Amino acid sequence: GSTKPMKQTQEMPLIKDVMVPVATIKVGFSVYEAAKKIIEDRFNHLPVVDEDKRLVGIVTSWDVSKALALSKDGDLAPIMTRNVITVSPEDPVDLAVRLLEKHNISALPVIDKDRKVLGIVTGEGLSKLISRGLRQ
Amino acid sequence: GSTKPMKQTQEMPLIKDVMVPVATIKVGFSVYEAAKKIIEDRFNHLPVVDEDKRLVGIVTSWDVSKALALSKDGDLAPIMTRNVITVSPEDPVDLAVRLLEKHNISALPVIDKDRKVLGIVTGEGLSKLISRGLRQ
Ligand SMILES: C[S@@+](CC[C@H](N)C(=O)[O-])C[C@H]1O[C@@H](n2cnc3c(N)ncnc32)[C@H](O)[C@@H]1O
Repeated sequence: GSTKPMKQTQEMPLIKDVMVPVATIKVGFSVYEAAKKIIEDRFNHLPVVDEDKRLVGIVTSWDVSKALALSKDGDLAPIMTRNVITVSPEDPVDLAVRLLEKHNISALPVIDKDRKVLGIVTGEGLSKLISRGLRQ
Repeated sequence: GSTKPMKQTQEMPLIKDVMVPVATIKVGFSVYEAAKKIIEDRFNHLPVVDEDKRLVGIVTSWDVSKALALSKDGDLAPIMTRNVITVSPEDPVDLAVRLLEKHNISALPVIDKDRKVLGIVTGEGLSKLISRGLRQ
């Protein structure tokens, strides 16, 4: 997807205009496997999917640290967050900003109607967008 | 430190107006110890200090994941980032925004002239400030 510049400050971009691709991991893998994937992709958020590629959870490097701190470095399932806050491609960007703030989280997986993962929007990415908008 | 509301959009707040307290860890501790501290404080960035409380590195949950992925879960020193990007209390907030963006990092320790850690500013904290400013 292309990132539209925020020329008209009135025009609110949609999630599909600002989301980026994201790697996923299948449930059943280990915390160690998740850590390797997080490091390889230099990315902090790893959506967890089932056999049908539907979103079932999310794992961040914070959860990996928690697993290490609690010496629970086996299966991914007990340490992943199951209640994932998500957005749809057609949602406006300001909804994502509000959700990130309200739930005090740093990224939102973008899913379709079948809960298939299409991408991700991060607080980092959104603040870049906002600061670019402010500078114009 | 108190957080000044951004009433006049012209007036650029300083780092000291927006920084928050941060826990630190002494160099010599283990990755496991760092993971526990990161989880207890529900904070992602842990400045690493020497005996004189001077900043010598930074560890995030990302580095902990890296330690796990590389099976290097002993001493903290080999996995911490030594070249820490920092700000001073008197720096303007927009410098922090630019540094976070330029170096693709999510927080900046605030240090004094002796490299003693005074607090931290995070991308998350700054975007909240910016979005509050936009809404007024
Ligand atoms: C390049 S970022 C990638 C992940 C994510 N974007 C983030 O900021 O955590 C992760 C690395 O940045 C390092 N880091 C975090 N804050 C830093 C700072 N203020 N100065 C230098 N390195 C920093 C961490 O130690 C970690 O190795």
